[in-house]
Amino acid sequence: MGGDRAPEVVVKGANIARDRYPNVRFLLIGDEVRLARLLRRKRRLRSRTTIHHTTEAVSNDARPSAALRTGRKSSMWLAIQAVRDGKAQGVVSAGNTGALMAMAKLMLRTLPGIDRPAIASFIPTLRGESVVLDLGANVECNANNLVQFAVMGAIFARTVQGFDRPTVGLLNVGSEDMKGHEELKVAAGILRGGEFPFQFHGFVEGDDITGGTVDVVVTDGFSGNIALKTAEGTARLVGQFLREAFKSSLSARLGYVFARRALKKLRLRVDPRSYNGAMFVGLNGIAVKSHGGTDAFGFANAIGVAVDMALGGFNDRIKDELARLTPVRALEPQAASL
Amino acid sequence: MGGDRAPEVVVKGANIARDRYPNVRFLLIGDEVRLARLLRRKRRLRSRTTIHHTTEAVSNDARPSAALRTGRKSSMWLAIQAVRDGKAQGVVSAGNTGALMAMAKLMLRTLPGIDRPAIASFIPTLRGESVVLDLGANVECNANNLVQFAVMGAIFARTVQGFDRPTVGLLNVGSEDMKGHEELKVAAGILRGGEFPFQFHGFVEGDDITGGTVDVVVTDGFSGNIALKTAEGTARLVGQFLREAFKSSLSARLGYVFARRALKKLRLRVDPRSYNGAMFVGLNGIAVKSHGGTDAFGFANAIGVAVDMALGGFNDRIKDELARLTPVRALEPQAASL
Repeated sequence: MGGDRAPEVVVKGANIARDRYPNVRFLLIGDEVRLARLLRRKRRLRSRTTIHHTTEAVSNDARPSAALRTGRKSSMWLAIQAVRDGKAQGVVSAGNTGALMAMAKLMLRTLPGIDRPAIASFIPTLRGESVVLDLGANVECNANNLVQFAVMGAIFARTVQGFDRPTVGLLNVGSEDMKGHEELKVAAGILRGGEFPFQFHGFVEGDDITGGTVDVVVTDGFSGNIALKTAEGTARLVGQFLREAFKSSLSARLGYVFARRALKKLRLRVDPRSYNGAMFVGLNGIAVKSHGGTDAFGFANAIGVAVDMALGGFNDRIKDELARLTPVRALEPQAASL
Repeated sequence: MGGDRAPEVVVKGANIARDRYPNVRFLLIGDEVRLARLLRRKRRLRSRTTIHHTTEAVSNDARPSAALRTGRKSSMWLAIQAVRDGKAQGVVSAGNTGALMAMAKLMLRTLPGIDRPAIASFIPTLRGESVVLDLGANVECNANNLVQFAVMGAIFARTVQGFDRPTVGLLNVGSEDMKGHEELKVAAGILRGGEFPFQFHGFVEGDDITGGTVDVVVTDGFSGNIALKTAEGTARLVGQFLREAFKSSLSARLGYVFARRALKKLRLRVDPRSYNGAMFVGLNGIAVKSHGGTDAFGFANAIGVAVDMALGGFNDRIKDELARLTPVRALEPQAASL
């Protein structure tokens, strides 16, 4: 029931995902009358869907603390509960990010060794794709949080993207050692000093994100969120300028006709919907956050992210890697007191 | 002598600016042998240029404090000194940003009512251009700094862009009141409560920057720098994808031929060089920071920014407006203790 156009977008998105992932079943949590109506003409989706009725939903502007207190019958709560109880292998929501994170933390708990979960996403770069985290779960982060994000991000890059020894960078306002907040400097000290299953590149800047300088970009949730949304806005701006350029003369219009097919592919490459589905990492369970304003195509992609995480056995891998890292993590308090 | 390819880029940039601004004269500060050699074949530039010899330069990785202590014969120091002493109406440098800001603060001093200067720039949006500040002068900002940035940014928008009552937004990770750092919330409280010569829109998000939601985007220097560089990187990524799209088929190649002229204009519209020249605002004097890696075209644009600021009598206008605001600013400490 979350997002700007729920439950329509959710059901339509599930219908697209149904086609892509023939073995996936859906547990839709929301108003059964509305859901049944939406499913009426989607026979194949209906046959793979169970409805769990509730009329309550977390509103978009609810504070996470309020949602935790009063939202125990909400679709969001029940969906996460289903994951906790093993009735679902993952939850996908387009609702209130803060509430989703708070409920997921409470019910799914963080993985051993992780103080705070983060929101991670793949983003396109000049050299492929990179993982960026945190994208907004933690407005303020200490050095240990950043180090843990680095470890989780690197495990992602290893298991999903298959990089044997991913490179990790800390997002900063310059690459020199003296730059940035104190917490960043301490985190860089820990990452330089410890033995991690990745190569620590050092500080990276905003343009390194899409530049693909590193496989994993680590940042606090405030800067990460602003970077992500700025990138989306910039892509939209360039797209608008491009449309204007193609309308600016007869010759340009003709050029558009010839290039149309290639430009359509380009649009898909930079479309935020193609990258929809931010992963909550560091939890005992799979939770994926869809953009609140996405459409069915975007929501289907978010479902795809959850499916990939479930099929890839992600959280088990993260747990295994974290367990192996224990001796390294024991170093942290020492290094942090630099 | 600052920037990646000084002094060549500086002299070539001055030569382009000479053509654009027939009344501007140049004071080049650096190695006179190298400068004289570069000026040899530029007769018209030479006739409007004075060379002030020094062989010292602030290195790119120097700490601002070290530059202040040991850089008193550097080209950067001497250039700012020339502004302070009225020998130049503005300084343009592609050198070490931190050192330039530190020296400018020390020699030019901040305007009355301003605690910390900020770095501001125009950036293209869906609706024209917006002013964004701070872009990196202050990694950490308190609420009063942010309020002062809002005032300075709004005066910019009024005097340069001619908006009678510009709209101002505070960059945050969500538009709801509860979002973000404590300092942001306090700043929002002050901006909502006081009478300012602008309309306070509230919080804006990363995609609002290029969306043109407000005329002035206010942020701390950490987030601002990351947003700016992320936007640059994203524009570069989309440009690269576009080039690949036009090479992807024969038809697309043909389309490129027809649209080439329009696309060239587009390139200029999103080219960071076109927006090169970040303004230091809040100082008793004009200082413009060029991107360190820019070329002559970009450097000429940075010179243009300084010329516009000087011709527009900017700092006087800011001073006037700040003086008028005194009764409002007296409210701040009260509001800040919310």
